Amino acid sequence: MHDDNPLVRRHEADGVTTLTLNRPTHFNALSEEMLEALGVELDRLADDAQVRCVVIAAEGRAFCAGHDLKQMRANPEETYYQQLFTRCGAVMQAIVELPVPVIARVQGLATAAGCQLVASCDLAVAARSSRFAVSGINAGLFCSTPAVALSRNVGRKRAMEMLFTGEFIDADQARDWGLVNRVADDEALDEVLGKLTASICAKSAVAVRTGKAMFHRQLAMPLDEAYAYAGEVMACNMMAEDAGEGIDAFIEKRPPQWRHR
Amino acid sequence: MHDDNPLVRRHEADGVTTLTLNRPTHFNALSEEMLEALGVELDRLADDAQVRCVVIAAEGRAFCAGHDLKQMRANPEETYYQQLFTRCGAVMQAIVELPVPVIARVQGLATAAGCQLVASCDLAVAARSSRFAVSGINAGLFCSTPAVALSRNVGRKRAMEMLFTGEFIDADQARDWGLVNRVADDEALDEVLGKLTASICAKSAVAVRTGKAMFHRQLAMPLDEAYAYAGEVMACNMMAEDAGEGIDAFIEKRPPQWRHR
Amino acid sequence: MHDDNPLVRRHEADGVTTLTLNRPTHFNALSEEMLEALGVELDRLADDAQVRCVVIAAEGRAFCAGHDLKQMRANPEETYYQQLFTRCGAVMQAIVELPVPVIARVQGLATAAGCQLVASCDLAVAARSSRFAVSGINAGLFCSTPAVALSRNVGRKRAMEMLFTGEFIDADQARDWGLVNRVADDEALDEVLGKLTASICAKSAVAVRTGKAMFHRQLAMPLDEAYAYAGEVMACNMMAEDAGEGIDAFIEKRPPQWRHR
Repeated sequence: MHDDNPLVRRHEADGVTTLTLNRPTHFNALSEEMLEALGVELDRLADDAQVRCVVIAAEGRAFCAGHDLKQMRANPEETYYQQLFTRCGAVMQAIVELPVPVIARVQGLATAAGCQLVASCDLAVAARSSRFAVSGINAGLFCSTPAVALSRNVGRKRAMEMLFTGEFIDADQARDWGLVNRVADDEALDEVLGKLTASICAKSAVAVRTGKAMFHRQLAMPLDEAYAYAGEVMACNMMAEDAGEGIDAFIEKRPPQWRHR
Repeated sequence: MHDDNPLVRRHEADGVTTLTLNRPTHFNALSEEMLEALGVELDRLADDAQVRCVVIAAEGRAFCAGHDLKQMRANPEETYYQQLFTRCGAVMQAIVELPVPVIARVQGLATAAGCQLVASCDLAVAARSSRFAVSGINAGLFCSTPAVALSRNVGRKRAMEMLFTGEFIDADQARDWGLVNRVADDEALDEVLGKLTASICAKSAVAVRTGKAMFHRQLAMPLDEAYAYAGEVMACNMMAEDAGEGIDAFIEKRPPQWRHR
Repeated sequence: MHDDNPLVRRHEADGVTTLTLNRPTHFNALSEEMLEALGVELDRLADDAQVRCVVIAAEGRAFCAGHDLKQMRANPEETYYQQLFTRCGAVMQAIVELPVPVIARVQGLATAAGCQLVASCDLAVAARSSRFAVSGINAGLFCSTPAVALSRNVGRKRAMEMLFTGEFIDADQARDWGLVNRVADDEALDEVLGKLTASICAKSAVAVRTGKAMFHRQLAMPLDEAYAYAGEVMACNMMAEDAGEGIDAFIEKRPPQWRHR
């Protein structure tokens, strides 16, 4: 079965899998179907031993405008909303739990659950003209689930200001607050993104995967537990062939030859 | 019974209740009586269904200089101090638990428990000439309770620098570190504050109240619990009349008519 | 027994103990021996009632380049690495648990566990030319234990960018992200450091020690527990002679005379 115009396009090149939200006429709203499609792709990538990092991109003038409000209004039942937000939360957590780094490539607007999507990614590169808001409050719907991700990216007064006012911040502000890593001139967005993905793909795959999982787990631990856990992970990482090769190469001042590209 | 010069003045206008610390000759120190008066007002506001947001302001040249040191020295008993700090902590937590956003309006100095008061508010607007310190250390008293609020607003090295040195930071620094949201030229402080309160008052009351409570609760949870909780809250919010109206208005490109103004 | 060239030099002056990593030919790598030597010094300082604050400095062109990779490669056993990282984690936690503030004095490079050392200190002053990276990933070894300290200093997207790319940030970036407190022109590094240590040494010793311990403990608590604990600590602090003297001096507008210098 071939779909010429899927909701989420997949593109693979040089170890980087790009998932492109592809419903530009709807500002890539996270409808049931879009969340389903994104979830399926993320599940598949979780089992893909070849992928080195994942980019979440979007087609058109907006990155993502959040949930599909028309669809939501057409299903006015609490059970429906519960299931919708459970599904959305599962997708966001699948990004955090994916074994490799996930990078948001942001252009245009990232609002509500679209802003949550950026916050949920490990890294983010934004076009200078992009803008960010958790604007549900303007429609009488506080961005509760986006707040979960946002408040784990930016300080609490900043998060609350965005949530209570619904106002936009621009890309430079988003970088200064820690919501995105790098801001690129619009025409240089893919160049800046490419440097970041190339940097990650040049690393040992086993080391990157080791790190992604441990980073998020240790964050939730008290300091002593975090150190005990991180020490175990790092000792295990040292036994991997790549660490031996990497350290030898460093000592011998030559480029490493990873086994686990 | 009428009090012409209460410790805390209350002013209500357009849904905004302003509580003004009114002991300018004592730099609005948080004496027992001031904490009591502030606590009574906050308790009352917790049950006020009409209030949309609360401003904590202060009369005179200082916002608040912290505890009343003379009163403290006049009661040199550990039990007295225990009760004083318990009362102070209860006031700070009452701000966090108030059902609506609380905004600090800061001019002049905010030191020790005065800085804690700013940190405890959900949002803060500061005059450009205002300054912030946790300066108890200069008097042999480490700002332990202020540290609780401060370290939940700014990064830990910054908090420790302020706590160990007792030095002031200015308003721009406070904004760059996340302790305040907006800095206004002194003469424009109320104008900038007014824009912020007007923005919040233009929102659906039920959505704002929903959000305030959930924001603080989810912050303390691990990611999966936070998403489960936020999803439930948001589904419930969707069933409110205002969300339906707000989303319909958004879709129809017209201003919403909130039921719960 | 006299050692002219110890791995860690100790210098005491005016209440400040400076521990200087002294293996400049090896960029002060945290070998087993270096960690042992540093641990011994920190243990001793934990029992030293006279010390007011501790500086961790380093000899030569680099602050610290992390673990000793040659030594690690010469001991290719998981048990060895486990013990090494346990020892390293113990040293980092000993810094956090030391009763007085610990300040990193950073010049040149601070990489991998060297960057962790900076992050683990309570405060840090950096030369403008200094640079920071968690660069193990370049050698196939994700900086898992450094991530524990780093992610408690800087926002998570920034920490992940450093960890996945291994790229350097400069001193100004480190300050803007909260990894260091102050950046000094290289030739003014000791002057800026001296102002900070002098400021801390001018305070009441009992207040500084009270604060250091409580700061780290309360950070890990939920808000209500943190306030209960901080209130107890502060009430106890109020009963110390220095607090009485400090407050009296403040009220009387004279310099305090600490008992516990």
